[in-house]
Amino acid sequence: MKIVINRDQLMKSIQDVMKAISPKTTIPILSGMKIEATEDEVTLTGSDSDVTIESIIPKEEDGIIHIHDINPGKIVVQAKFLPDIIKKLPDETVEIESDGDLNILIRSGQAEFKLNGQDPEEYPQLPMLETENSFHMPIDLLKTLIRQTNFAVSTSETRPILTGVHFKLENGELELVATDSHRLASRRVSMEEDVIQLEFKNTVIPGKSLSELNKILDESQESIQISVADNQILFRTKHLFFLSRLLDSNYPETSRLIPDQSKTEVHVNAKELMQTIDRASLLAKDNRNNIVKLVTQEQNTVEISSNSPEIGTAEEMLKTNDISGEELKISFNAKYMIDALRAIDAEEVKISFTGAMRPFIIQPTDDSEHILQLITPVRTY
Amino acid sequence: MKIVINRDQLMKSIQDVMKAISPKTTIPILSGMKIEATEDEVTLTGSDSDVTIESIIPKEEDGIIHIHDINPGKIVVQAKFLPDIIKKLPDETVEIESDGDLNILIRSGQAEFKLNGQDPEEYPQLPMLETENSFHMPIDLLKTLIRQTNFAVSTSETRPILTGVHFKLENGELELVATDSHRLASRRVSMEEDVIQLEFKNTVIPGKSLSELNKILDESQESIQISVADNQILFRTKHLFFLSRLLDSNYPETSRLIPDQSKTEVHVNAKELMQTIDRASLLAKDNRNNIVKLVTQEQNTVEISSNSPEIGTAEEMLKTNDISGEELKISFNAKYMIDALRAIDAEEVKISFTGAMRPFIIQPTDDSEHILQLITPVRTY
Repeated sequence: MKIVINRDQLMKSIQDVMKAISPKTTIPILSGMKIEATEDEVTLTGSDSDVTIESIIPKEEDGIIHIHDINPGKIVVQAKFLPDIIKKLPDETVEIESDGDLNILIRSGQAEFKLNGQDPEEYPQLPMLETENSFHMPIDLLKTLIRQTNFAVSTSETRPILTGVHFKLENGELELVATDSHRLASRRVSMEEDVIQLEFKNTVIPGKSLSELNKILDESQESIQISVADNQILFRTKHLFFLSRLLDSNYPETSRLIPDQSKTEVHVNAKELMQTIDRASLLAKDNRNNIVKLVTQEQNTVEISSNSPEIGTAEEMLKTNDISGEELKISFNAKYMIDALRAIDAEEVKISFTGAMRPFIIQPTDDSEHILQLITPVRTY
Repeated sequence: MKIVINRDQLMKSIQDVMKAISPKTTIPILSGMKIEATEDEVTLTGSDSDVTIESIIPKEEDGIIHIHDINPGKIVVQAKFLPDIIKKLPDETVEIESDGDLNILIRSGQAEFKLNGQDPEEYPQLPMLETENSFHMPIDLLKTLIRQTNFAVSTSETRPILTGVHFKLENGELELVATDSHRLASRRVSMEEDVIQLEFKNTVIPGKSLSELNKILDESQESIQISVADNQILFRTKHLFFLSRLLDSNYPETSRLIPDQSKTEVHVNAKELMQTIDRASLLAKDNRNNIVKLVTQEQNTVEISSNSPEIGTAEEMLKTNDISGEELKISFNAKYMIDALRAIDAEEVKISFTGAMRPFIIQPTDDSEHILQLITPVRTY
């Protein structure tokens, strides 16, 4: 194999593919990156067996030449040093050559690296995903959906299924739900007409996979194809394959957790609430639960406070836009509230409480249909 | 005590003073920051007993009012949460008030923090530095001197004296030397006329103190006063006191380590050499010593290479401006060379070798008097 390739283009692909390569892998060949050149393109592959990423560099695209010379072939190169080597090369093109003895030569300007390669025939085959369960959405939208839900997955392996985000497609509507059993984030979106006939219900994607996918995808109006099979999901753009395993047990029924009525409702500026809670929680960070109290007051005001016996207390009065229903004293994890407000990203939110010991929900005031954040309070009174 | 003070101004002083406060202190009162208000100014003090920093905020300066109200007094406040609290306050002024029971109230806009204070009478007194050994230099110059030498101090406590930088003032010339016994950095500078009568020879400042001082001082043409006493040194600007203990044993005689003749001399572009060594050393980073080889070649060229048996080899030919003297093969720690070239910060350097096993020196070609970096090679041939 021999390729003469634009350095910046190669660098970007390497950085994407590196996200799937784990230095801690127990399968030696997976510590490497596969480089495969055909007549028309170069494909880089990395995998940690949970996630596999392929990045494709076409020889030419939109009149721009990325690859100046290709002699087809393939090789597996140690991934550990590759990004640093390519990044620091002196010239704007790089020559990569491998011989029958798995020797790799990387050359750019006067710099020459000779690396020991591994046998590409030993690299695991990407599973072919046989499925008709495919649909499309804009990359931007997928990134938003991930951002609005993925933070709420569980980081504990006690219930492994909760470390994933539940994808449900039904009646042309896609719903994502994540919960760590203390809070829940859900987002729904209506899909294009052509997915009405598609349906999948128990698709749970590891939160870690979605984080990596979100990092790789640039904000873009372009479309991404999503294909779901029994135990895998494939995200596919023009130059990227991102394949993740799915979690394989049943996701709990979450809809019954969401209260359908409320006793106290607060309308408040989201940014002001976020900043007030952020301040009040400063002294609470030493506590394990990072707890702040919210108490409704006269004249549409709430008092937000926290208390850390050894250090002191913080309190602040916050003017809301409206408070209706019963008086309320409630305590909750400040971080959960800040995460939820950040995910909602609306100017005004509506918080619906059903008493001090029941979960409460936060939604944008002007759209209560599509995004919902739920937080379970903490008993302190 | 009560002060109403500009938040940004207070924040900057807190950040400076925090650099002396260690969360790991075994003296409880030193986990706090002392705030002392007089009629004209507010002084913040932090100390870890090795370094003490005082930052002074005048009531008014250049027509700008920093403090809107002062009621003199003093208090010690827990330092841990203070920067976060002040940074996140909603208003541009902050009110800080303490009562006779050591309660502290911090108020800004609607936000109110009540903190438990500590007794300022228990805070250790700053030692009065009685000395006539004082001189001045521009802050810029002091920062440069620190940058050019301090990186070479030892990080090991095997010989504690080598963890400091040796300051020597004699015949109106100030010399700084640092060495970890594998490499040495030295910088000399002629002082103003009025320090001819001053002399100090065994002043060794902890490298850690100089790092912190360098972080606090902004680039500026303004003057800094340096006062040396038996076991302490004080750096003083208009609004800052920075007091550090000195290391208390004899600094080794280093001048005899520096070879006074050379067998091979290489003149080379510093940036090109740095980049070439940086690349060649990429594969050497797995080795404990990060070793690269330099071999002189025909036509004013040197070959820079490294070799890591399991990974591969890197090599690069670098055109120099001139090579004179004997042929040479030498190996050295790449990081030491990169640190030295970065400290010298000249377009062209002269490297003077005295054989493969003797220390070599690096100096700017156009000024070999004032800055010198020495590196001990590694035996590989």
